[in-house]
Amino acid sequence: QAAFFRLRNNRAFELFVVAIILFSALVIGAKTYDIPADVLTLIGWMDTAITLFFLLEVSVRFIGEPEKKRFFLNAWNTFDTLIVVISLIPVEDSEMALIGRLIRIFRVLRMVSIIPELRLLLNSLIKALPQLGYVILLMFIIFYIYAAVGASFFGVINEVLWGDISIAMLTLFRVMTFEDWTDVMYETMEVYPFSWIFYLSFIFLTTFAFLNMVIGIVVSVMEG
Amino acid sequence: QAAFFRLRNNRAFELFVVAIILFSALVIGAKTYDIPADVLTLIGWMDTAITLFFLLEVSVRFIGEPEKKRFFLNAWNTFDTLIVVISLIPVEDSEMALIGRLIRIFRVLRMVSIIPELRLLLNSLIKALPQLGYVILLMFIIFYIYAAVGASFFGVINEVLWGDISIAMLTLFRVMTFEDWTDVMYETMEVYPFSWIFYLSFIFLTTFAFLNMVIGIVVSVMEG
Amino acid sequence: QAAFFRLRNNRAFELFVVAIILFSALVIGAKTYDIPADVLTLIGWMDTAITLFFLLEVSVRFIGEPEKKRFFLNAWNTFDTLIVVISLIPVEDSEMALIGRLIRIFRVLRMVSIIPELRLLLNSLIKALPQLGYVILLMFIIFYIYAAVGASFFGVINEVLWGDISIAMLTLFRVMTFEDWTDVMYETMEVYPFSWIFYLSFIFLTTFAFLNMVIGIVVSVMEG
Amino acid sequence: QAAFFRLRNNRAFELFVVAIILFSALVIGAKTYDIPADVLTLIGWMDTAITLFFLLEVSVRFIGEPEKKRFFLNAWNTFDTLIVVISLIPVEDSEMALIGRLIRIFRVLRMVSIIPELRLLLNSLIKALPQLGYVILLMFIIFYIYAAVGASFFGVINEVLWGDISIAMLTLFRVMTFEDWTDVMYETMEVYPFSWIFYLSFIFLTTFAFLNMVIGIVVSVMEG
Ligand code: NA
Ligand code: NA
Repeated sequence: QAAFFRLRNNRAFELFVVAIILFSALVIGAKTYDIPADVLTLIGWMDTAITLFFLLEVSVRFIGEPEKKRFFLNAWNTFDTLIVVISLIPVEDSEMALIGRLIRIFRVLRMVSIIPELRLLLNSLIKALPQLGYVILLMFIIFYIYAAVGASFFGVINEVLWGDISIAMLTLFRVMTFEDWTDVMYETMEVYPFSWIFYLSFIFLTTFAFLNMVIGIVVSVMEG
Repeated sequence: QAAFFRLRNNRAFELFVVAIILFSALVIGAKTYDIPADVLTLIGWMDTAITLFFLLEVSVRFIGEPEKKRFFLNAWNTFDTLIVVISLIPVEDSEMALIGRLIRIFRVLRMVSIIPELRLLLNSLIKALPQLGYVILLMFIIFYIYAAVGASFFGVINEVLWGDISIAMLTLFRVMTFEDWTDVMYETMEVYPFSWIFYLSFIFLTTFAFLNMVIGIVVSVMEG
Repeated sequence: QAAFFRLRNNRAFELFVVAIILFSALVIGAKTYDIPADVLTLIGWMDTAITLFFLLEVSVRFIGEPEKKRFFLNAWNTFDTLIVVISLIPVEDSEMALIGRLIRIFRVLRMVSIIPELRLLLNSLIKALPQLGYVILLMFIIFYIYAAVGASFFGVINEVLWGDISIAMLTLFRVMTFEDWTDVMYETMEVYPFSWIFYLSFIFLTTFAFLNMVIGIVVSVMEG
Repeated sequence: QAAFFRLRNNRAFELFVVAIILFSALVIGAKTYDIPADVLTLIGWMDTAITLFFLLEVSVRFIGEPEKKRFFLNAWNTFDTLIVVISLIPVEDSEMALIGRLIRIFRVLRMVSIIPELRLLLNSLIKALPQLGYVILLMFIIFYIYAAVGASFFGVINEVLWGDISIAMLTLFRVMTFEDWTDVMYETMEVYPFSWIFYLSFIFLTTFAFLNMVIGIVVSVMEG
């Protein structure tokens, strides 16, 4: 078992597994190109070997856990088990081709299981999320008020963009990404010449809230 | 009264109130979907209950204030009172439907009254504003000079984009957000082939001023 | 003279002067709206009074300087003198209307003369410039190489976008601002299917250089 | 040899060499404009002189190296040698004009050889790269999964944008730069009304990962 874990934490082995996963991922996308059948079969066998290796690894960890109930309280254990289970589902190309494809696609996530730095990165991303909670709530309030006002006034001008509050929120998100936002504005300015105030105040508010969020994270990360 | 404030600062109660506010906000946007009449009535009653609770809370705070005149010097007290007063206006759907909708929309701001973290966030946003004062003045000077020059030279080329100084400022804001700015530029370059200097210098100046503003805030927040 | 400088540094007086400058600036842009002739005349008189005040102030400073030659070595003295001289040029609307307008427009820069915080801000902006020097040179090298390669290969595809190196650099700046850059790319991909490498590598290089510049400034400002 | 290195590190000489390189670079782009033949000949001679100077400099450094094998282990030595070799290739305009042009273009990189600050900048850029390694891998996983899902579902809607996984990745990069991304979204929303979840979640994930990368670099630079 010690040798097993030495293999698992070996850099060269890790690189080899990542290469196989990447290669078998690229093969799905490149089906139409002419790859020799031998190579495809080899890749397929190695892919299966990796799946079995992951199954073994998760099993070893599960057996090593003294309290079985606590095993799935660790999010990474649940994640790894899920990925292994998904990878084990046999993929028959003939029937349910779409689901087969999706299962193959999500097998790429096995890379997160094998690379510790990727887990660290994801951990730090997830740890930064709660800080965003209240900014997202504030953003939602800003979006909601502007969307409701926009739907009330501009709904009759352009049904497709301002038809109801949820469509209006999507339109406002588009405005926030500066995507052809002047087309949206010029259209409503023909009816309400002062509606540029609506758009500019929205852009200022959301940009300002976004900037403060970024600055807040920088400062809290550096002080913590 | 102590029990009242204990309830007001209770996390579970806060979450419950936020849920009701969010739900009644979403109901306005989703009127057309089929929500059972019973649920709508229940939400309506709970919404009224929350409004009354907020009215009670503001009243308790107002009665508790030894000097009545100072109560409204606190911006949050004024804000909460305004929200309660707006929420109390009866909304008759039949007449003045638009104003009724707007009142309902602004009721969402009651969330800011109940969540202390949102107040802290807004406070920090407002505290960052004065720092921006002089950068905004500088931006205004840059925008004004470029808009006046643009209106003088390009006014005859495209009346809609450069007709007068205020329209030119809106066009320059569009250029600053990179929204189809090359269309604006190519048009004037046909008459003045060197007008790209106008646009590029404007983009450099505003980007540089914007960047320095962001950096200035980061540095001042970290040192203060 | 002491009383004069006390007036000059008086906050209320400063605000009054800024208000007049802003108002007379807005009047140029709003000529067509109906502003009573009396108000216009009053603003005109006050504007002239401010110009004379600035003339007096610069003169006092010039007389107070022991070594006259060193006076213009100070960039702000030169700037203020220039603004005063420009402001003193009489503007006859009948002839050379465009130059008259431009002179009026640049009078707005008198605001920089009166507000000390704006000077501080401009000083810090100018101080940050030399740090950018080498990044701008690096950017120029990247732009030059990509523009020269682009002009060599894509010049025959689209003369307007890739005709010569200088036009290609403008097109690359457009790509850098993400302004309809896919239209530019899809066009060349029809002839060179792998030209997406050209655009993506360019975007990565410039974004990366830009990011490092911003980070470099933040770090140097905080350590200095 | 000491005098040689004194010349090489002389600021005025450096400026002179940079000016010649820039000038001879601009001359390639400006061939069509009327530059007197004498000036062109002079520039050509000076350009050749600089190339010979660089050849001499690299040779001196190579001779000065006690262990010849280690010379090319230094990346800058290899870079300088390459640039000198490329610069020495004679450029005949009559045949293979395109390759001649490309060789001339890459001669601009001699500037990196002569300016030490540019090398420092490039060094710091390259040093920041490994930090990006895992973020780029994470980005690749996000892009791959979204591209594979997008190609599976939207491939039949628009062959040009979602035809296979590699085209879908290019389309997603376009969405990430907010380039007419709503056009892409509105098209798929006609078939799958909820496909906005696909685009918005993609934008949130990539923006969030990008932001964390920037913040991570800022923090690591400041602590290191
Ligand atoms: Na855009
Ligand atoms: Na666009």
